[in-house]
Amino acid sequence: MHATVTLLTDYGLQDEYVGVCHGVIARIAPEARVIDLTHGVPRHAIRAGALALRRALPFTPAGVHVAVVDPGVGGPRRGIAVRCGDRLLVGPDNGLLMPAAERLGGVEEAVDLASSPWLLDPLSATFHGRDVFAPVAAHLALGEPLARAGDPLPVDHLVSLALPEPRREGIALVAHALAFDTYGNVLLDASGGDLPPGERVEVAGRWVARGRTFGDVPDGELLLYEDSSGALALAVNGGSARDELNLRLDDEIRIA
Amino acid sequence: MHATVTLLTDYGLQDEYVGVCHGVIARIAPEARVIDLTHGVPRHAIRAGALALRRALPFTPAGVHVAVVDPGVGGPRRGIAVRCGDRLLVGPDNGLLMPAAERLGGVEEAVDLASSPWLLDPLSATFHGRDVFAPVAAHLALGEPLARAGDPLPVDHLVSLALPEPRREGIALVAHALAFDTYGNVLLDASGGDLPPGERVEVAGRWVARGRTFGDVPDGELLLYEDSSGALALAVNGGSARDELNLRLDDEIRIA
Amino acid sequence: MHATVTLLTDYGLQDEYVGVCHGVIARIAPEARVIDLTHGVPRHAIRAGALALRRALPFTPAGVHVAVVDPGVGGPRRGIAVRCGDRLLVGPDNGLLMPAAERLGGVEEAVDLASSPWLLDPLSATFHGRDVFAPVAAHLALGEPLARAGDPLPVDHLVSLALPEPRREGIALVAHALAFDTYGNVLLDASGGDLPPGERVEVAGRWVARGRTFGDVPDGELLLYEDSSGALALAVNGGSARDELNLRLDDEIRIA
Repeated sequence: MHATVTLLTDYGLQDEYVGVCHGVIARIAPEARVIDLTHGVPRHAIRAGALALRRALPFTPAGVHVAVVDPGVGGPRRGIAVRCGDRLLVGPDNGLLMPAAERLGGVEEAVDLASSPWLLDPLSATFHGRDVFAPVAAHLALGEPLARAGDPLPVDHLVSLALPEPRREGIALVAHALAFDTYGNVLLDASGGDLPPGERVEVAGRWVARGRTFGDVPDGELLLYEDSSGALALAVNGGSARDELNLRLDDEIRIA
Repeated sequence: MHATVTLLTDYGLQDEYVGVCHGVIARIAPEARVIDLTHGVPRHAIRAGALALRRALPFTPAGVHVAVVDPGVGGPRRGIAVRCGDRLLVGPDNGLLMPAAERLGGVEEAVDLASSPWLLDPLSATFHGRDVFAPVAAHLALGEPLARAGDPLPVDHLVSLALPEPRREGIALVAHALAFDTYGNVLLDASGGDLPPGERVEVAGRWVARGRTFGDVPDGELLLYEDSSGALALAVNGGSARDELNLRLDDEIRIA
Repeated sequence: MHATVTLLTDYGLQDEYVGVCHGVIARIAPEARVIDLTHGVPRHAIRAGALALRRALPFTPAGVHVAVVDPGVGGPRRGIAVRCGDRLLVGPDNGLLMPAAERLGGVEEAVDLASSPWLLDPLSATFHGRDVFAPVAAHLALGEPLARAGDPLPVDHLVSLALPEPRREGIALVAHALAFDTYGNVLLDASGGDLPPGERVEVAGRWVARGRTFGDVPDGELLLYEDSSGALALAVNGGSARDELNLRLDDEIRIA
């Protein structure tokens, strides 16, 4: 059984960037199994990438997990590799890895990749996925120790990620639009347990049915449900809740 | 040589849904080879997915073939796994698997996955690709018997898929726009043998050249040809026949 | 360690075309590792595909490298397989493979695939990725000799690819917009060594900062930099240089 490397980026699939990262890994660790989690994170959307990584990792084999959403590439932000139990996470130190790391029990060990012996040479200033993160991940997938990947970095120096938090206002729960998926489903920063049971709730001033799945409401109607990651979410059966409610990221949503 | 699992869905590649299914399979059947047939089926387009699956499977190794286009996820529709010769097909019982199954010789054995021992726990109501179909496929890829995947289901209880059929009107052949591909090529529900030979035909009131390939007509011109799956199809050399003829799904196309 | 096959096409990922090519390869060479370089080359954009292939191959393992951007499929253009050192390139003879082949040291041996014993039967006129290039690549990945793939073809009969070239006009460098990536970064046909050092240059009549990476200029500002392939390129930090400068392919860009 071979080591698993997972990749999550905002590179998209139009260019050869993702394929090149696969190539770099295959040259160093030809037996590694590489799984693309997604490369469709919106450009520079660190939080969307962080949340997708947090949702995905519990379902993958333990291995080396690369994530690259990196508006500061080539600048002063660090490149890092961190250990969480039997998982190794590799990417920029801009908060991207932190929600997943916390879900996995927290970071136990971290290294700064600036002087890693495994960087490609020449090292570009704009494509660290290829020149830093892919080769580091591949060496780790070969079983080389994390301490060899770079210089030790105190865990409390890592950059964290600010996330909105839901709050109570009287009987109402005020949540936020934390993320959207490709269908226009709206992921909230609250979980099913935050709400008392009931068949209907008021969401953003409208009566909305609660249900388990999309088909619990007629076509085109709004639904409040617990999504597959356990979070409260809004959907329109066969449509887009994002469009229906005209939501932008972080918008407050009052549920009562 | 390891078992092959193929995946076809309407999940798109923007979110982590497909990557998570890969993760689930890799945790259960780490040696399986997983082939993505496509995840670009238009959302909820059961027929488009069914036709793509039927076109693709003859070209893949025999294995376990998962397809998920599932507007009824979490509702009363069944999840199924069926055997067609040396192939196993896994997905929702909404007709999606049936055209491929018929092409492969028909369903010989079927099980209902509702009580499958292989479902993930907790089982979400909205992501059966992850919680039902991927783990069932992975266990089947390990060589576990189909009968263990769920409860026996009479083959004639399976939901079939209605497809339009071409008809004769005098000397004319009235076909339908069965599917479109990303280039705007129009797949018809008729085959080359349905037409007498000839260099030009009247299609939707226009004279259209017949040919073997796109370059048989000048740039921007319409072409009637037999596509790579043996079906009659319409293309515009370097353009979109769908747009040129302003076609929607199931529109009738008179060929004379 | 198994042979590597890389794929680069303009098929997109909406349809099952790419998945079918994977299937064909897996049936013939089940142990081959297949890497998708990209399938997002703009439709029929031979040059964009050729440049992406040239940029990507140095970072992949040596193996069999398939590229298909093929507006002349099924017509008189040849299908070819060529050897460059320890690499084998497979695709249409329309110039697509040539820039990569030259970067790899030039073509040492070439065959015409028209009578290859490895073509699928029946052979379609419109899907040579499936019926010609994938099966030929898979047989080569099994270690079968190139000479068995088809009939010998003199290397100087291969179709080459015309690329624009930068020129001097007094102290100015006149380069061209050679390609765009998904972010709107503009790849030029000149390299960093073509410019004297300096902090700012005039590009298309505007003062533009030179830098190493996007964050070297404020959000929304233009940057001239050496991209990860060593070429001069234009970017807008957090935006699109293509849109900002309203550029089309091959447009001249005067740098002084």
